[in-house]
Amino acid sequence: MKAIVLHGARDLRIEEREAPAAGPGQVRVRVRRAGICGSDMHYYLHGRAGSFALKRPFILGHEFAGEVDAIGSGVETALLGRRVTVDPSMPCGACEYCRIGRYNLCLFMKFFGSASTDPHVDGGFAEYVVAPAANCLVVPETVNWSAAAMAEPLSVAVHALLRAQGVAGKSVVIIGGGAIGQLTALVARAFGARTVVLSDLAEYPRQLALKLGADSVVDAGDTRSVEAAVADAQGGFQIVFEASGASAAVSAAIALARRGGTIVQIGTLATDVTAPLNLIMARELSYLGTFRFANVFGTALHLLASGRVDVAPLVSATMPLADADRAMQRAVGKDNVIKVQIEP
Amino acid sequence: MKAIVLHGARDLRIEEREAPAAGPGQVRVRVRRAGICGSDMHYYLHGRAGSFALKRPFILGHEFAGEVDAIGSGVETALLGRRVTVDPSMPCGACEYCRIGRYNLCLFMKFFGSASTDPHVDGGFAEYVVAPAANCLVVPETVNWSAAAMAEPLSVAVHALLRAQGVAGKSVVIIGGGAIGQLTALVARAFGARTVVLSDLAEYPRQLALKLGADSVVDAGDTRSVEAAVADAQGGFQIVFEASGASAAVSAAIALARRGGTIVQIGTLATDVTAPLNLIMARELSYLGTFRFANVFGTALHLLASGRVDVAPLVSATMPLADADRAMQRAVGKDNVIKVQIEP
Amino acid sequence: MKAIVLHGARDLRIEEREAPAAGPGQVRVRVRRAGICGSDMHYYLHGRAGSFALKRPFILGHEFAGEVDAIGSGVETALLGRRVTVDPSMPCGACEYCRIGRYNLCLFMKFFGSASTDPHVDGGFAEYVVAPAANCLVVPETVNWSAAAMAEPLSVAVHALLRAQGVAGKSVVIIGGGAIGQLTALVARAFGARTVVLSDLAEYPRQLALKLGADSVVDAGDTRSVEAAVADAQGGFQIVFEASGASAAVSAAIALARRGGTIVQIGTLATDVTAPLNLIMARELSYLGTFRFANVFGTALHLLASGRVDVAPLVSATMPLADADRAMQRAVGKDNVIKVQIEP
Amino acid sequence: MKAIVLHGARDLRIEEREAPAAGPGQVRVRVRRAGICGSDMHYYLHGRAGSFALKRPFILGHEFAGEVDAIGSGVETALLGRRVTVDPSMPCGACEYCRIGRYNLCLFMKFFGSASTDPHVDGGFAEYVVAPAANCLVVPETVNWSAAAMAEPLSVAVHALLRAQGVAGKSVVIIGGGAIGQLTALVARAFGARTVVLSDLAEYPRQLALKLGADSVVDAGDTRSVEAAVADAQGGFQIVFEASGASAAVSAAIALARRGGTIVQIGTLATDVTAPLNLIMARELSYLGTFRFANVFGTALHLLASGRVDVAPLVSATMPLADADRAMQRAVGKDNVIKVQIEP
Repeated sequence: MKAIVLHGARDLRIEEREAPAAGPGQVRVRVRRAGICGSDMHYYLHGRAGSFALKRPFILGHEFAGEVDAIGSGVETALLGRRVTVDPSMPCGACEYCRIGRYNLCLFMKFFGSASTDPHVDGGFAEYVVAPAANCLVVPETVNWSAAAMAEPLSVAVHALLRAQGVAGKSVVIIGGGAIGQLTALVARAFGARTVVLSDLAEYPRQLALKLGADSVVDAGDTRSVEAAVADAQGGFQIVFEASGASAAVSAAIALARRGGTIVQIGTLATDVTAPLNLIMARELSYLGTFRFANVFGTALHLLASGRVDVAPLVSATMPLADADRAMQRAVGKDNVIKVQIEP
Repeated sequence: MKAIVLHGARDLRIEEREAPAAGPGQVRVRVRRAGICGSDMHYYLHGRAGSFALKRPFILGHEFAGEVDAIGSGVETALLGRRVTVDPSMPCGACEYCRIGRYNLCLFMKFFGSASTDPHVDGGFAEYVVAPAANCLVVPETVNWSAAAMAEPLSVAVHALLRAQGVAGKSVVIIGGGAIGQLTALVARAFGARTVVLSDLAEYPRQLALKLGADSVVDAGDTRSVEAAVADAQGGFQIVFEASGASAAVSAAIALARRGGTIVQIGTLATDVTAPLNLIMARELSYLGTFRFANVFGTALHLLASGRVDVAPLVSATMPLADADRAMQRAVGKDNVIKVQIEP
Repeated sequence: MKAIVLHGARDLRIEEREAPAAGPGQVRVRVRRAGICGSDMHYYLHGRAGSFALKRPFILGHEFAGEVDAIGSGVETALLGRRVTVDPSMPCGACEYCRIGRYNLCLFMKFFGSASTDPHVDGGFAEYVVAPAANCLVVPETVNWSAAAMAEPLSVAVHALLRAQGVAGKSVVIIGGGAIGQLTALVARAFGARTVVLSDLAEYPRQLALKLGADSVVDAGDTRSVEAAVADAQGGFQIVFEASGASAAVSAAIALARRGGTIVQIGTLATDVTAPLNLIMARELSYLGTFRFANVFGTALHLLASGRVDVAPLVSATMPLADADRAMQRAVGKDNVIKVQIEP
Repeated sequence: MKAIVLHGARDLRIEEREAPAAGPGQVRVRVRRAGICGSDMHYYLHGRAGSFALKRPFILGHEFAGEVDAIGSGVETALLGRRVTVDPSMPCGACEYCRIGRYNLCLFMKFFGSASTDPHVDGGFAEYVVAPAANCLVVPETVNWSAAAMAEPLSVAVHALLRAQGVAGKSVVIIGGGAIGQLTALVARAFGARTVVLSDLAEYPRQLALKLGADSVVDAGDTRSVEAAVADAQGGFQIVFEASGASAAVSAAIALARRGGTIVQIGTLATDVTAPLNLIMARELSYLGTFRFANVFGTALHLLASGRVDVAPLVSATMPLADADRAMQRAVGKDNVIKVQIEP
């Protein structure tokens, strides 16, 4: 089979590999669509994503969907040939975090397309991938491949929303209009936020957010725009999602939050960030980290299947596997791209 | 009456003032003991506490207890002559924060001995003070004046504990062994924390914490001491209270926290702080501000009355009102002082 | 002015009364629409609602909207002439429940059109009513009188939803398709419930629920229908709202709940109910009472104004004040009536 | 080895069985002490416990401690010879309840000494028992066998306390002074409850509770005693634990609860119970079931090891394995017995 193998920073190679076989409890998926995530870009650009450094070549990709092409022993035959989207989380099920239901913090997590464990776990930027049957959710016909491959980033947004302990009836602002920010805005709307506002430095993501149903947008580079949003929100927003990862965005998030409000940090920040943390005390804010997701993949798929969230406008480009390098460069580019997907 | 009036930074004067009269629903308290808080020291040293700047002379002090000396109309006569400790919070009762029970965030809060409103509210560093009867909790005979005046800072600790959503059965570390840090350690113990550890740069607060029941202490200046504590806590503490306000302490708090753990910011920080906030995302931490307190003054008094918390070892010195300046200098000094109280 | 005065069970009289004057902080509202609630029917039928018995004649009605016709001292003149809907809750703002934000449990609550206090508080079944300005929310032009008068029962539904601590992504069933049950279904949808199912003995409320967007319905009288719903919900629903008040409905609610699920009791039950409470233990269910509402009136109005909840199909009849008796009989009747409103 | 095998209602036989061997990941424990639980008594008296009926003979007992006598493959040799107490929960780790951290609700739970699965799982009323190494917690020397075997029922109490979302600073009453009720009172004290009151019909458990630190007791059969407790608790208790399982106790629990309060149902009730459930709505109570426990066994052991909970006074009798029948009759008897333990 053909696969996109990362050998180092900016060293992405299309290689011929032997297609993996499904072991007990596993299925083999013929990948139909796989999205490029921010962490894929980090691996591509720097050979690492946060604290996870590439040690040997591996296949990227953790947002993917396809058909079940073969099944291992112990797997229901009904799964054969079904269209599935794959939850990339393979927690141990036994450590202290798994036991309390926060398996996204699992001490021994294996995650598709990630160098967080050694050996690294090959991902979905390939023609075939093997996954536990339990990780495969059957996709209804109404959800196309592109949307099915969005269940994973949508899960990140759903998890972030639940970390905020409910947005129903609350005023919400999202900082950062990339894929995760836009998805967070869509889910905030679907989960009953009173107002949904999106803040970005650039025009394109702001316009897109408005088109997708945001109540209003903020030009993050314009102080008056920010101040007007705070005033409109009666002294600030009850919930702020920081989905940009920009260092300055933490200060912006604090400035946008109402007394007693909640800030959820979704974006990956630099190692050190300077911010007016004293206001977190003085305004009694809650600043909550959110990491990947747990127990929400089914919810994400249901949002897609029910039509409550439409992710089609977020997919900016779909490119063949052979164009991996161009696809990656397009993804990391700044020219009005939200999500790039690969079609093996 | 005699009162300690602050006229500006380091300008504290003993003045003769007319004793105030109790209006409707109010009582006049003959102050017997009043503690010096960190914010009193800020006012004294800088003429301001955080964003609240002194605009005209006023009487400091919000930790005080005394006898009800006179009552206004509508107050039960049974209150006359009773020993009381005074909750310094006078929220409006009608704003959006009062309505949701977070009255410590009240938009129109009046607070004894504070320049947060204009006119400033005179506090308890005086022979007499007038307070709403509803703010006066009767103190049992078993609680002496010194302890009664500690109900207020103890309330800060109780509120911080509740912000952490329960410490029962959890591993807890407190950064900073001043009055609030020590009180937080005592309440963590009383509320069933599994382990209570206190971290400080100095020897005296560490030894005091051990004497008061902490399981162990950390030398905040010694990397190995910190690392050993993290290892003992199986990868970090479930709950971290930051009670020092030192900029470096935020990084320390993050380093001490376990995945999925909670950090509660009690100490007043500098305007801007640099810290590895990315770990709040990557470890899915909750970083929670805590500001003053709401709905816990009675709990604090009960902890004192039941003997579950003994604050006597925290009171380093008691000085007459006439020695206000020396008392303040002693409080801001570094020579093994936890809490200085004034006896009018 | 004309008013509907209840003198005793089934003794409703149209009387001429002097229109009340707006005192300090108050406004006088020219009532345009007022809905008949279940508690109004209880007063009408039995001279009491739960433990609140009528002691002397008073005016019913706590769901009403109208124009501000006069203002008392201290009220902004901008309010004069505005279309408003009135939050009927007048809590004391100072008791222990008010202080913790649960002011619906206020020990000294005054509530429009209620005999819970003595003297009783006259309600909105009259041409004029006086209310605190703070209780009046301005209604946008897009919300008609009928919808504006539904903000109150909609608040009951919103409060019940929040008691369940979030329905986003969860499977939800509502027992009872009266006004509150239908509103609960609508809000569950608006707040992101994964599936919304409504159960009733009668055909009309089931059909209405389907028309309003429920995913499916259950015939509460047909065991197979109930069992099929449980099976569809993978062993039961995560959240059950009991909005019928029927004694048998508590058992039904327990049968419909999944392990670890939540049941919210909205309906008024008989004094004693027999139910398999052991299953609440064995399945670790949470059975939560919900009483009136707190802090959600604005959310309810916003749901109406934004069009996310459309209450028009729930208003079965609108009748003039002079027809009070017929209106009440229609409301308590069983002939496909959801909500009857009075137009003074 | 000798084992106590239940063949049916009141048919308990001492039998000679082959000692089990430790498989991979398992250890064999030489049982030193095993407590008789209420469910053991149910099996003994009726051949069933709740919905779990005995289908074939099996060994009872899920509260036990002993020495690790042999280890299977993959188990650390350091465990050999260690004194351990055994968590009897063996959840699947993969079902929807395990995934959200509520593994006590696991769809495929195996539990020592229980007929909830078929084949039944043999328990600890034997000289030897085999258990997963991961279920064995090493017991410090300071905890004797008797206390070590109490870690399991203590876990039930800790879980119930956590279900109440924190008792720190709250007023608490426990209905039922059997083993679980007394343990709940002890843990409520250890976790910082403001007041701990125990209610029982009998004198002995009341006196015992007072001796163990309860603030006061209620004679459940004396209306004036109940009313006085409610008055002392300022209108009712914030948290009520129902640990008796008596049908009348549900009404009592509701009567003892303050507005907005929480009732936790620990005791096993009859199939149907009649109670004034309308008050759960009208007072907005939370009535929460609690079933076994999850994630607290280590906390329970720590409470024992730290001396914060002393269970010695609860162990009424210790009897040899050969006296199984007498031990059981003593346990089900009413003569001032709290907990009977078996010493194989």
